[in-house]
Amino acid sequence: MGEGRVATTIRDYIRTIPDFPHEGIMFRDVTTLMGDARGFRMAVDMLVHPYAGRRIDHVAGLEARGFILGGAVAHQLSTGFTPIRKKGKLPARAIAEEYTLEYATAVVEMHDDAIQPGEGVLLVDDLLATGGTAAAGVRLIERLGGVVIGCAFVIDLPDLGGRKRLEGMGLDVHALCEFAGE
Amino acid sequence: MGEGRVATTIRDYIRTIPDFPHEGIMFRDVTTLMGDARGFRMAVDMLVHPYAGRRIDHVAGLEARGFILGGAVAHQLSTGFTPIRKKGKLPARAIAEEYTLEYATAVVEMHDDAIQPGEGVLLVDDLLATGGTAAAGVRLIERLGGVVIGCAFVIDLPDLGGRKRLEGMGLDVHALCEFAGE
Repeated sequence: MGEGRVATTIRDYIRTIPDFPHEGIMFRDVTTLMGDARGFRMAVDMLVHPYAGRRIDHVAGLEARGFILGGAVAHQLSTGFTPIRKKGKLPARAIAEEYTLEYATAVVEMHDDAIQPGEGVLLVDDLLATGGTAAAGVRLIERLGGVVIGCAFVIDLPDLGGRKRLEGMGLDVHALCEFAGE
Repeated sequence: MGEGRVATTIRDYIRTIPDFPHEGIMFRDVTTLMGDARGFRMAVDMLVHPYAGRRIDHVAGLEARGFILGGAVAHQLSTGFTPIRKKGKLPARAIAEEYTLEYATAVVEMHDDAIQPGEGVLLVDDLLATGGTAAAGVRLIERLGGVVIGCAFVIDLPDLGGRKRLEGMGLDVHALCEFAGE
């Protein structure tokens, strides 16, 4: 954001860091959004807005930035929060789903008693890229009998195809802003 | 919690898992607290209660469970949220502090523009054990000129001395429950 300019949109609050974590990646940093009182509240309000009147029993957040946003969204909706964590971090009995990274695979886990059959779940994360992690999170929720009401992200990178992938699974996808063709 | 018994205190919502992550450790699992709508809201209300009327500009949360609680606390207080992360996770320029584990050292980091001089900061995490991570977080905040208004935890393990250590640094320490001598 340039000096003297007031942030009025979600995009204005997001900082871009070139070449992180690898050369050629334009990293979209939401810490500047979450660190601003007005920006953070605006983001949470906008994340929950499409789901007014829907029954949401749990908010599930993807480690780690999805924990910050998801914790706030769960508080806003007066629901419980369920973490979807990287392998080996959860202390009790968990179920696991593998997903594909660029040159490897990774695993996310959820406690096997975190969601009861029929409960409505809103999945929250900061960024939708290829959608691999989110799709694995959806599979975890559905294996426990949960109903995914929506997948809500601050940022969508449409060039990476995550929205199409999740919508192809029949999911509602909601993002507050896009960074495309950059 | 026994069958048919209704959880009425924070302790009732916390699950104990023996021998996690190592044999002999009684792990206090807050995911059962955060996963319950009433428990999560009660915890957030109780975490902020002592700070009514104090000027808090930022909530800082320790990775990773402190992100969930801290995100909700920041939302409740209408402040921004600042993550204190493990080494190498933050994308922009950061400052670092080392702390001691049982047989090793570790490093936590905070973006160097996350807090402005004179801002009031509430530090939030799920568990106070030896206080090493929290003390390192406090040093990060103070190096940026922030004023630590308090350190708020869901659980205090008083046998491990964290409260004494933080109070010895002149800090206000607030915990919702204790597990001692067990």
